[in-house]
Amino acid sequence: MLPWRRLALPAQHARSFSCTARHREIRHISELPPRTIPSYIQSPANTLLSLQWPSPPRNILVTKKKRTPNITESVVEFTSHIRSTYPSINIVFEPETAQELHRQLPFPVYTYKKAGQLSDRTDLVCTLGGDGTLLRASSLFSHADSVPPVLSFAMGTIGFLGEFKFREYKRAFREVYMSGAPDTYSTLSDSLGATPPTPATSPDDPLDRPLSYADIRGKAMGSNRTARILLRNRLKVGVFGPDGKRIGSVEGAADTYALNEVTLHRGSSPHLKIIDVYINNRFLTEAVADGMIISSPTGSTAYSLSSGGSIVHPLVPSICLTPICPRSLSFRPLVLPAETPITLRLGKKNRGREVEVSIDGNTITEKLGTGMEVRIGGEVVKRDARGWEGGVPSIVRGTSGKEDIAEDHWVGGLNALLKFNYPFGDQES
Amino acid sequence: MLPWRRLALPAQHARSFSCTARHREIRHISELPPRTIPSYIQSPANTLLSLQWPSPPRNILVTKKKRTPNITESVVEFTSHIRSTYPSINIVFEPETAQELHRQLPFPVYTYKKAGQLSDRTDLVCTLGGDGTLLRASSLFSHADSVPPVLSFAMGTIGFLGEFKFREYKRAFREVYMSGAPDTYSTLSDSLGATPPTPATSPDDPLDRPLSYADIRGKAMGSNRTARILLRNRLKVGVFGPDGKRIGSVEGAADTYALNEVTLHRGSSPHLKIIDVYINNRFLTEAVADGMIISSPTGSTAYSLSSGGSIVHPLVPSICLTPICPRSLSFRPLVLPAETPITLRLGKKNRGREVEVSIDGNTITEKLGTGMEVRIGGEVVKRDARGWEGGVPSIVRGTSGKEDIAEDHWVGGLNALLKFNYPFGDQES
Amino acid sequence: MLPWRRLALPAQHARSFSCTARHREIRHISELPPRTIPSYIQSPANTLLSLQWPSPPRNILVTKKKRTPNITESVVEFTSHIRSTYPSINIVFEPETAQELHRQLPFPVYTYKKAGQLSDRTDLVCTLGGDGTLLRASSLFSHADSVPPVLSFAMGTIGFLGEFKFREYKRAFREVYMSGAPDTYSTLSDSLGATPPTPATSPDDPLDRPLSYADIRGKAMGSNRTARILLRNRLKVGVFGPDGKRIGSVEGAADTYALNEVTLHRGSSPHLKIIDVYINNRFLTEAVADGMIISSPTGSTAYSLSSGGSIVHPLVPSICLTPICPRSLSFRPLVLPAETPITLRLGKKNRGREVEVSIDGNTITEKLGTGMEVRIGGEVVKRDARGWEGGVPSIVRGTSGKEDIAEDHWVGGLNALLKFNYPFGDQES
Amino acid sequence: MLPWRRLALPAQHARSFSCTARHREIRHISELPPRTIPSYIQSPANTLLSLQWPSPPRNILVTKKKRTPNITESVVEFTSHIRSTYPSINIVFEPETAQELHRQLPFPVYTYKKAGQLSDRTDLVCTLGGDGTLLRASSLFSHADSVPPVLSFAMGTIGFLGEFKFREYKRAFREVYMSGAPDTYSTLSDSLGATPPTPATSPDDPLDRPLSYADIRGKAMGSNRTARILLRNRLKVGVFGPDGKRIGSVEGAADTYALNEVTLHRGSSPHLKIIDVYINNRFLTEAVADGMIISSPTGSTAYSLSSGGSIVHPLVPSICLTPICPRSLSFRPLVLPAETPITLRLGKKNRGREVEVSIDGNTITEKLGTGMEVRIGGEVVKRDARGWEGGVPSIVRGTSGKEDIAEDHWVGGLNALLKFNYPFGDQES
Repeated sequence: MLPWRRLALPAQHARSFSCTARHREIRHISELPPRTIPSYIQSPANTLLSLQWPSPPRNILVTKKKRTPNITESVVEFTSHIRSTYPSINIVFEPETAQELHRQLPFPVYTYKKAGQLSDRTDLVCTLGGDGTLLRASSLFSHADSVPPVLSFAMGTIGFLGEFKFREYKRAFREVYMSGAPDTYSTLSDSLGATPPTPATSPDDPLDRPLSYADIRGKAMGSNRTARILLRNRLKVGVFGPDGKRIGSVEGAADTYALNEVTLHRGSSPHLKIIDVYINNRFLTEAVADGMIISSPTGSTAYSLSSGGSIVHPLVPSICLTPICPRSLSFRPLVLPAETPITLRLGKKNRGREVEVSIDGNTITEKLGTGMEVRIGGEVVKRDARGWEGGVPSIVRGTSGKEDIAEDHWVGGLNALLKFNYPFGDQES
Repeated sequence: MLPWRRLALPAQHARSFSCTARHREIRHISELPPRTIPSYIQSPANTLLSLQWPSPPRNILVTKKKRTPNITESVVEFTSHIRSTYPSINIVFEPETAQELHRQLPFPVYTYKKAGQLSDRTDLVCTLGGDGTLLRASSLFSHADSVPPVLSFAMGTIGFLGEFKFREYKRAFREVYMSGAPDTYSTLSDSLGATPPTPATSPDDPLDRPLSYADIRGKAMGSNRTARILLRNRLKVGVFGPDGKRIGSVEGAADTYALNEVTLHRGSSPHLKIIDVYINNRFLTEAVADGMIISSPTGSTAYSLSSGGSIVHPLVPSICLTPICPRSLSFRPLVLPAETPITLRLGKKNRGREVEVSIDGNTITEKLGTGMEVRIGGEVVKRDARGWEGGVPSIVRGTSGKEDIAEDHWVGGLNALLKFNYPFGDQES
Repeated sequence: MLPWRRLALPAQHARSFSCTARHREIRHISELPPRTIPSYIQSPANTLLSLQWPSPPRNILVTKKKRTPNITESVVEFTSHIRSTYPSINIVFEPETAQELHRQLPFPVYTYKKAGQLSDRTDLVCTLGGDGTLLRASSLFSHADSVPPVLSFAMGTIGFLGEFKFREYKRAFREVYMSGAPDTYSTLSDSLGATPPTPATSPDDPLDRPLSYADIRGKAMGSNRTARILLRNRLKVGVFGPDGKRIGSVEGAADTYALNEVTLHRGSSPHLKIIDVYINNRFLTEAVADGMIISSPTGSTAYSLSSGGSIVHPLVPSICLTPICPRSLSFRPLVLPAETPITLRLGKKNRGREVEVSIDGNTITEKLGTGMEVRIGGEVVKRDARGWEGGVPSIVRGTSGKEDIAEDHWVGGLNALLKFNYPFGDQES
Repeated sequence: MLPWRRLALPAQHARSFSCTARHREIRHISELPPRTIPSYIQSPANTLLSLQWPSPPRNILVTKKKRTPNITESVVEFTSHIRSTYPSINIVFEPETAQELHRQLPFPVYTYKKAGQLSDRTDLVCTLGGDGTLLRASSLFSHADSVPPVLSFAMGTIGFLGEFKFREYKRAFREVYMSGAPDTYSTLSDSLGATPPTPATSPDDPLDRPLSYADIRGKAMGSNRTARILLRNRLKVGVFGPDGKRIGSVEGAADTYALNEVTLHRGSSPHLKIIDVYINNRFLTEAVADGMIISSPTGSTAYSLSSGGSIVHPLVPSICLTPICPRSLSFRPLVLPAETPITLRLGKKNRGREVEVSIDGNTITEKLGTGMEVRIGGEVVKRDARGWEGGVPSIVRGTSGKEDIAEDHWVGGLNALLKFNYPFGDQES
């Protein structure tokens, strides 16, 4: 069994689609081969998981911060590099980006009409921007149970989720691409470095190429040098009317996933909102406040932090409940088990229909009024016989070769970004 | 296999020990049969576990708050009731209590010389007092990996850990005692109510009696009516000198378990302490503060709460790191995964040997100085093939017959004891 | 000189206005005699001031919470009592209330078209409702340097500003009305209790009546029994466009006074706002936050408290600067001297015109954008040769006869309303 | 009237004291001329006061951080400079410092036996060290109503009170020394620069020298260039036994002044303390806590800040009441008027005599027990006919020539020292 040599989908399928002007065109994502799903391997010495591809990833979704010219340039540089270095890779863009960039790129790009089409065709997500960009990328999978790994580059903006600097992109991508590749093939690839890896008859359509790490130029990373994965658990959110019917859902009846938090807020309404909080279907308290934040551990360093919540490590299976400006001296933030069902209900004491519900910073429903409910459940990230399930697999800065020192990405973020426990004193003197 | 009918230890063993004045005497715990270890059963509908005895518990350790006359009276009432209702039970006291009470009680009491002898002979712990009493009872098992279930009665004092009111003691104890008993035997017991359950030849030594639920008078609770168990994970604590050697350990080389928290504090020293904090063996931050609290989720409502920490549900597998009066505006409390190793080291900047280490409110080491370390690891509560392991099995107020409503004990505690989110307003008007 | 016997304005002025159907009519406030301005006397033993009328107050503005039927009934009861007990008093309503109530009342009511007309004709303000009602009453004088004393009744709603319960209204009003009246006249009034105080020829128009405490039935309060005044200092607020021109002002070029606070808030905008804060015309910090609260000490128990601010006693001459959900771990609330000029400027980093400015809970300007400024100055309450100046003279619960125990109104509010330092524990057990 | 030319005390007084080995000797402070008391002038454009000497200051107390060799060197450099540049100045040291340094210095030094002797002979205090050094210097006047101006140099240690860097000492001292000197004399001094300012017959005893600014070499500062004074109000503290008698007072029956704060703390006692808090002689609340901090506005950035208190500007006439680790969710810090009398009483619920009272970080009384009281009153800083009274006149970094920009010292301290509102983000990227 040699999964690493598995061939790509038959070339004729793709060929029949467009025969001329193959460059610079936009194709539909359905033409791509189905998704390659990686495994996540746990090692006793590390709380992070190791990414392991059964075969090299081919379909890469690249998202970017909007309306920022220098980031657009970086996307061109990044995707051009990937296409030239890893010829079997296909680039997927969001529709707007595909429209904006396809003429500048010497290869076809793929896109979709509905975000729901992405989850079956995306092997890997790369984001260039800030935390907002990553949250938006995550939202493209907000109705999917299984999210591809996400490699995020911070583009000069402040962020806790953007792990890598853009100047590291070649090495970072290579580490992800090669993650889990067997040493033998890597070595082979290496020794073959002199011979041209690309067969002459095969032009630039990745779908025509055999899929193998043997194609890859350059030195292998070694089997120990895997990309590190942090499975960030999300929140499942549903909004329901007084009649118990689901409302505010973009795509049908399903819950929406949030990576950072769900927020109820008064918005422009001057009045305090009265929100009944239930946990485990049991009344907990009546919050009189500007709003309420239900956050994942990942979101504990976002809005919840601004509102007074503790900092919760992303590997603590938990949900944070943090009030926004409560009219009480004694509403201390709560940290609950990840699987706790939480219901926020707008009781009869509220005047008007003036509450907004936001997911990861985007308002999904306005004008919520009496009797309406937001029901939240934590996504449970667990390992069963088939491997790990759930969560957003985020590629984080590993600690290669130093197995005893794990998770510097989080400690580093606390100190460098949040200025955690920043010491008093006049550095100058 | 009918474990419920298993006989008690051979009577001759006990008889040879003391032949006269059997009442009012103090015996050594080693005379007792070995510990009966219960199972904890998980049900899909409830986050709490069900207590299940393989055979009725026999060795009951009863601890009480010291120097409080009315609680002493309650202990006499409680143990007298237990002995008369459940004749096969033996009462174990702490040495001081045994000395104080054995003359007032019409049955022998057991005690020990070293707390380490308790864990092999104690089936169940009952505490009468406040949280301090329960913490002290827990400390008797602070070097034991396996702690017996704990049934705690709050005696008029404020407490988050004392689940039951003393006036409930008959029913509460019965529920614990019968928990998991098969219905058939209960029914049998019930139908046999008319016949005297105690054989005439057997006087009052429980060790002479056959061990069976059939002896128990009164109505059975039914197999659904089990006691609810919350496995509270503890912290493992070791203190080490600058030479890396363990210090401050009461009983040899082992770590000490803490149920609530480990605290480093300046004590009477006027100077701020400088504590280097490492997590996962990686430097996190230099705390300049009055002290530092490392707490379990159970302890999150104790000292950590006073010091600004969030409230963490006891089922969140986590450790809380909360500074005490830090000289920084930005030292937000942290919640870390339960298995995170944490080291607190006193760096060279500290003057003198002036730091105290306390476990659950008791100072275990004073005069800690430069180079000394406190190493803390969370106890991992997990289920493997042999059942649940780790934690202090705390019996909490269940929700019999209402399987869909779990964990009211915690919500109740928040609202009734902590006055969580207490609303503004003049109730009177 | 006997100011207490000073006559009312010549009767012919009022008579010429309306000759028939004098009841149930709405008159214009300009018909009323000019305002009677009281003095506030400081005593060494009390931090509160004593109210002293030069002559009995005549023009009473009564405001009420809107759309609350039982409060409307109370207004009818209250004003009817005042008119029958103190015949020389005239009742002024807000236009909406005048329209709503004038048919139910057996006496003429006065009203105005522009709130600016009030300050010259109002001797005393009585509010029936909650804090919102008092804030609204205060806003009627938000462009006036001198505010009449305010007597506020809490109508079953929670409030920190409503001092008196409605059931106390007869006694409370009498204490205010008589405050500072010389004993001799009080005694005289008392001895004349048997004779009808109202001359037969004078019907029910207060403007026809001589103004004297001698008319008042019932026992005098004694000269020591004065109403207690707390001068609550306000904030002066101006909003300015990028061109430096004043905007958002309702009535011309003047600053607006706030009793509680001025708030900048993102409203429905999802983006954090970037607010440059200047104090004393010097750059202090760049706040990245949901918003910013500048509050008076009176307002320190309102929005600022919900947002994490300290509780500041209303007699501390200060301004509080409290951020709303700041994206920083180290933005501790500030307390500044009352006279500190503060400028909040929306810098160029803000996207869009999406900031709202609110005064005492009412949005005065939306859509503030880049370059706009809110300039705030504390109102300085000071005593000069002419007496006390500035502030809203709030009548608070005094401590008659116990001169050594001052300010119970504030301590009482902390404990009864805010549940300050509410103790842990199960009261029931 | 030319006070600036007033002569020194008759020389014979000093001469009779020691006739040989005049250098390197320690003299008693009582030999010095009486204190020169400056005026503090308020200007409309500045919230800080201007220092104005009636005649040049002569008696300078110099204090330093102990056991820090490089600071000792700086003291030698500093005092040598002062003596050579301003020959009429006498240097006063604390006894320990006098003993340590007098052999290294080419001039006599003065000292005292009891700190109470200082207040009549000290014109100016200079401190070299950190905040602790300044607090200790302040404590030398902790029983004096009138404190000399304090010029403090931060010696590489973190501090909010140390205004100047040591490298600025020449200019900073000159600005203080010349503050308020008339321009004419300055000019004169300047033009006389060529002629030797020191008469030949007068050796190096300052007491023999005429006192005049004319002696001073170098350019004058100009009359606008005055030193800026911030009058920091202190707290008056008394400790009383259950019998109402004063205890714990070092020097007789008087109250002690605190510059930063008074603290009650459990010290090494593991038990929470129960402290009844009275304000204005009225019961406010029962604090159950590790301790309680009563701080001045100056102290609001010290222990109170670490314990969660707001930052209060030193010109807000107030007292801060901040609990240390209270067992309550709702004990928000309070800011009270400066003149509020506060009593902290240890009620009967406390076990043992285990509370410590500290003033500005120094424990003054241990083992406080049931019935004992700490009574605190704010020092009222006020201006009457004779000028400003009360407070510690702290020389702060002024804003010469920019009268419209005041108080940069405080804003600067917030940002540079406390890292107030330190922004998120990776500065490096």
